[in-house]
Amino acid sequence: MALSHALCYYTPWGYLRMATRPPRLAASAFCGCAAHSPKRKALGVDPQIKSANLKRLRRIEGQVRGLERMVAGDRYCADILVQISSVQEALRAVGRALMRNHLRHCATQAIRQGSPADAESMYDELLNLIYTHAR
Amino acid sequence: MALSHALCYYTPWGYLRMATRPPRLAASAFCGCAAHSPKRKALGVDPQIKSANLKRLRRIEGQVRGLERMVAGDRYCADILVQISSVQEALRAVGRALMRNHLRHCATQAIRQGSPADAESMYDELLNLIYTHAR
Amino acid sequence: MALSHALCYYTPWGYLRMATRPPRLAASAFCGCAAHSPKRKALGVDPQIKSANLKRLRRIEGQVRGLERMVAGDRYCADILVQISSVQEALRAVGRALMRNHLRHCATQAIRQGSPADAESMYDELLNLIYTHAR
Amino acid sequence: MALSHALCYYTPWGYLRMATRPPRLAASAFCGCAAHSPKRKALGVDPQIKSANLKRLRRIEGQVRGLERMVAGDRYCADILVQISSVQEALRAVGRALMRNHLRHCATQAIRQGSPADAESMYDELLNLIYTHAR
Repeated sequence: MALSHALCYYTPWGYLRMATRPPRLAASAFCGCAAHSPKRKALGVDPQIKSANLKRLRRIEGQVRGLERMVAGDRYCADILVQISSVQEALRAVGRALMRNHLRHCATQAIRQGSPADAESMYDELLNLIYTHAR
Repeated sequence: MALSHALCYYTPWGYLRMATRPPRLAASAFCGCAAHSPKRKALGVDPQIKSANLKRLRRIEGQVRGLERMVAGDRYCADILVQISSVQEALRAVGRALMRNHLRHCATQAIRQGSPADAESMYDELLNLIYTHAR
Repeated sequence: MALSHALCYYTPWGYLRMATRPPRLAASAFCGCAAHSPKRKALGVDPQIKSANLKRLRRIEGQVRGLERMVAGDRYCADILVQISSVQEALRAVGRALMRNHLRHCATQAIRQGSPADAESMYDELLNLIYTHAR
Repeated sequence: MALSHALCYYTPWGYLRMATRPPRLAASAFCGCAAHSPKRKALGVDPQIKSANLKRLRRIEGQVRGLERMVAGDRYCADILVQISSVQEALRAVGRALMRNHLRHCATQAIRQGSPADAESMYDELLNLIYTHAR
């Protein structure tokens, strides 16, 4: 499993480019984002993680519509609460897959090629994600 | 949303029981039971909780579609993770409102009119909801 | 399982008293606390829940001392993190047992004998405990 | 606290490996390995994180003893539950500090000097810690 071969870059022209040795990025550019876009992009995305996540999110969208029907139909509160918990678990699974991708590409890039300050920024970002957002 | 206003009670522990003594529930608590349905119904649903929850769920559905677009567009993983966390919080708010309704109507009914065994079943159900599902 | 026989009261004289019909308490007095004490008391405590919780807490105290030894000995961070998670689960088990006691006695008392305002205060307290403190 | 400053590495995945290339770790990162111990050691421990964690854990030990007194004194369940939640938050703070240390030293080492398989093991370990243990 050669990790470096999975590193793809999102360029300003909108397509992925393979690099044998990724360029040293400034702290603000870890996202590999297109300079013309205000939206930060992922440094690399494993195609299987992406397609699995899209599939999961479409299923979650259906589950949320199911919740709407349960609420509209005055279904037993405890049954809806159990169903909400199941949607939350499904979102958690998407989060876990994204976190794997994040560690594999963006975090690895910052830790391997970044300056000590870049690495520290990445640790801060990860801790914030873990303890504030991934609970 | 066909809701019978007749005084019939669907108990949380799965059977229909007629009340010998009318419940001391607020005016907003009407019976949502459906004897012909295999699906358990809420004992009472506060109209304002219901409409707020439907509104919240429709917004959540939109947020999930937003997540799909973020994943499809290879947006920065950390940004998607923060967004997932926001959907989780929104689901938690729906859960909290449903739990309030559940305590106010179903749990109160079981604790006030139910037998000691009914009350114990309700405590078990609540503990299960709180410690397994309400994360 | 006669629930009412488990209802014990903590009196200003510091001991438990059985009551066949509990007195109607004001909202501020749901805790059954002694008037002379600034510390609120439980309305009723199941002896087996109390002794099981004391046992659990003494074990947790030992686990925390174990954590101190792990940190002092520079043990592998991931191993300490797993151990912290185990202490958290143990505390959660104590919380669950306390919540059962709370529902069985204090909440039941407020819902059964309290005024509508008393019941609403109890719902608020429970929701706060569930969604802010029991996560 | 006898800590060897020799350059020997105890890898997170359970075996001792000598570094062919000295790690780019900060001065505070010293080797904590103990070849004669079956207990895994941290690759590096920031002294300030360690002393802060020991202080926090001693305070937590005191908080747990406080919980024992509350339970022994039949204090109001909701008050004990709030106190448990405060101990959980304190444990979470210790976990967060340990996670920072883990990312800074052990994870960084595995990602920088390890083989692709080493890095993948570290991602798995981190995901497991984040999604199973860091609640």
